[in-house]
Amino acid sequence: MSLKLTILGCHSATPRTFAHPTSQVLEINNHFFLIDCGEGTQTQIRKFKVKFSKIKHIFISHLHGDHFFGLIGLISTFSLLNRQTELHIFAPKGAEEIINLQLKLTKSWVHYPIYFHDLTSIESELIFEDEKVEIFTIPLKHRIYTNGFLFKEKLGERKLNMAKILHQNEIEICDYQNLKNGKDFIKENGLIISNKDLTIDPPPPLSYAYCSDTAYYEALIPIIKNVNLLYHESTFLEDNVELADKTKHSTALQAANIAKKADVKKLILGHYSSRYKNLEKFIVEATPIFKNVELAEEGKVFSIEN
Amino acid sequence: MSLKLTILGCHSATPRTFAHPTSQVLEINNHFFLIDCGEGTQTQIRKFKVKFSKIKHIFISHLHGDHFFGLIGLISTFSLLNRQTELHIFAPKGAEEIINLQLKLTKSWVHYPIYFHDLTSIESELIFEDEKVEIFTIPLKHRIYTNGFLFKEKLGERKLNMAKILHQNEIEICDYQNLKNGKDFIKENGLIISNKDLTIDPPPPLSYAYCSDTAYYEALIPIIKNVNLLYHESTFLEDNVELADKTKHSTALQAANIAKKADVKKLILGHYSSRYKNLEKFIVEATPIFKNVELAEEGKVFSIEN
Repeated sequence: MSLKLTILGCHSATPRTFAHPTSQVLEINNHFFLIDCGEGTQTQIRKFKVKFSKIKHIFISHLHGDHFFGLIGLISTFSLLNRQTELHIFAPKGAEEIINLQLKLTKSWVHYPIYFHDLTSIESELIFEDEKVEIFTIPLKHRIYTNGFLFKEKLGERKLNMAKILHQNEIEICDYQNLKNGKDFIKENGLIISNKDLTIDPPPPLSYAYCSDTAYYEALIPIIKNVNLLYHESTFLEDNVELADKTKHSTALQAANIAKKADVKKLILGHYSSRYKNLEKFIVEATPIFKNVELAEEGKVFSIEN
Repeated sequence: MSLKLTILGCHSATPRTFAHPTSQVLEINNHFFLIDCGEGTQTQIRKFKVKFSKIKHIFISHLHGDHFFGLIGLISTFSLLNRQTELHIFAPKGAEEIINLQLKLTKSWVHYPIYFHDLTSIESELIFEDEKVEIFTIPLKHRIYTNGFLFKEKLGERKLNMAKILHQNEIEICDYQNLKNGKDFIKENGLIISNKDLTIDPPPPLSYAYCSDTAYYEALIPIIKNVNLLYHESTFLEDNVELADKTKHSTALQAANIAKKADVKKLILGHYSSRYKNLEKFIVEATPIFKNVELAEEGKVFSIEN
């Protein structure tokens, strides 16, 4: 099981040549989930060699431009690349209207199906599920309706303990799937061999929580409890804590406090205001509260395997 | 009198790290006119150090994404930069609806006045005029409603021929403006001194014609006749003339033919398809028809003074 997060952009507000607005790709169990899509995201996707065709699900946290203005361009480019496979977009209500109006007025017909999944709930909800992954919203506290997203692997199959299985003559290959599924083995004489004596626990499922944009908001702590990786916005440092409060953003210190209280394993900071030229200060501010912290940087990859 | 054209982007279709979609800034008589606004234009404006605050008029040729998707981001950035001065946008009908819907749904209120000037005419029309400049549309032939733009300096004031004026004792400083305006001088004894004997012709007005996107279209020739500078799209080379015809774009050879027939002074080629890696071929194809031809390149500046 593995999880790989590629940062495409991690700056707030207006795009600059070396400071792109928010976008990330999360690779988990053969899914490539695109999270947010600021202006220029499609260029970053090319730059960091993510294959366009692999992206089938896009998650938009909120409809501020630095998280959203690149979506129409990406949709159009998919079309120019002759995409046929369907695209699912999870976004606050309104995104569909904007995209469809633009496609209509620009007469840019797309030849692949786009399914919009309007997000409206103010409580955490399951929005995607397959055999291996489930995704929940994380309601955040921002100036407009905003969700973070929690990506969770499901508990995998149990691993066969072959040394022990080969000692049992009656167990055949056709029994393996039942064992992987956790079933005990019943011998011909009626004796039961416990599944735990024949299999090993699967690796613990991995999880990633994306929380941007948001003010300091303790209500998200139970939702993101114990995640392996947390991306929490830190638009400001504590020198601007009042501005953070006013604009409903967070400081690095506040992000660290959320990480600590939620017992996450690692914290990534991002969504920096352009006023800060030296980003190391974000680490300096967060570390006394939460040690395992790193800066998001464009092109940086965070990988976890187990 | 001078004219300075800065190319911000000159490639067709999808943006790439080193191939931005169409946008240009024309500096003429202290105006900074932005022409087209593909995704990433605001980043290019920063990169090539054009001052955001100087842009007061934006001209959108048509509503295809590679000429238009950067507009909402630019409008939002103007707002973040606390712009107060008004902005005029000349664009096909529909642009206003798209921009206003996005501003509404993203709750991004702008605090400066935006005036949309809907373009709907299929004949060339005067859309802007002040003391020194006038701007006309150039109806083009493309898959959707499209205009090019003709920027023309007005004929300036006549220059005083001081050597001759100082020979005439009766002419005082307060008479100079009348002479600049072309009036004859009437002496106290009733004798008339012709204006031409006291002034020099002003430099001929400069003109720039922007023609993108368009198929080969001879109807535009009388409108752009004799301009100093013509930007004519050349998405393709003649190896793809059928594709050019089908998609209503032009080849370099066709652009050169238009330049020749319109007797323009200089031709700039641009809007290259990404299939061409060696852009010198565009020059090779155009030169036998029209000699004074150059390639548009990002950051390249074309200046004319007289």
